[in-house]
Amino acid sequence: MSRSTELDHIGVAVRDLDNAIKFFTEVLGLELEKIEEVPEEKVRIACLKLGNTQIELLQPTDPSSPVSRFIERKGEGIHHVALRVKNIHELCRFLREKGLKLVYEEPREIRGERLINFIHPKSALGVLIEIVERR
Amino acid sequence: MSRSTELDHIGVAVRDLDNAIKFFTEVLGLELEKIEEVPEEKVRIACLKLGNTQIELLQPTDPSSPVSRFIERKGEGIHHVALRVKNIHELCRFLREKGLKLVYEEPREIRGERLINFIHPKSALGVLIEIVERR
Repeated sequence: MSRSTELDHIGVAVRDLDNAIKFFTEVLGLELEKIEEVPEEKVRIACLKLGNTQIELLQPTDPSSPVSRFIERKGEGIHHVALRVKNIHELCRFLREKGLKLVYEEPREIRGERLINFIHPKSALGVLIEIVERR
Repeated sequence: MSRSTELDHIGVAVRDLDNAIKFFTEVLGLELEKIEEVPEEKVRIACLKLGNTQIELLQPTDPSSPVSRFIERKGEGIHHVALRVKNIHELCRFLREKGLKLVYEEPREIRGERLINFIHPKSALGVLIEIVERR
């Protein structure tokens, strides 16, 4: 079974992406790497370099986005932690065998460059854990 | 001004440290590095290696612990993100000049090995950011 040993990124839910980028770059001194639209998750994302991991700022682009619902319930803040894995299909099978609830039946492909799924916070001590296989 | 470019750790608030260690090691395959008491923060901590950063599991040891109050209000889950800095006093001065609210007037010394302070979530888009200077 391939296990994750790397942190891919930390996701932070924000209302206003430009304002959040300004805070993380001008106040905390992080470097903006890219901004991308992820229509599959109804979010606009800014990736900021933090050592050899990233902070991923997520602004919902639609009220039906899971990130909109998160902000409504809990306010802005840390949304998820993402672990980089070698074989997402194998890991999802292993996690289901252990009785964990995953958010998607099958991993979702994002921009042809990564496959993702999430471990439900109810199965992971309240932590939303994204698992990512990068191509 | 010295800025942080490294993630020191991610803090996760849990009710039961042993149960949480079991989940992160047996299910997610992380490696337990150490368990320590931090009476200054009224928590017992387990550090788990995740690539070249750490997951820090925090179990409150007293109902007056800030982590107890967090769990009461929000449930278990991601509690803070910690950035490693070179000069915590210089950074605190800079952050106050920018109008940010810090949790402690002066950085706290923990076990003679690190100095810490926190940026209040109200000053940081809902994210509790710990800043750490390691000796």
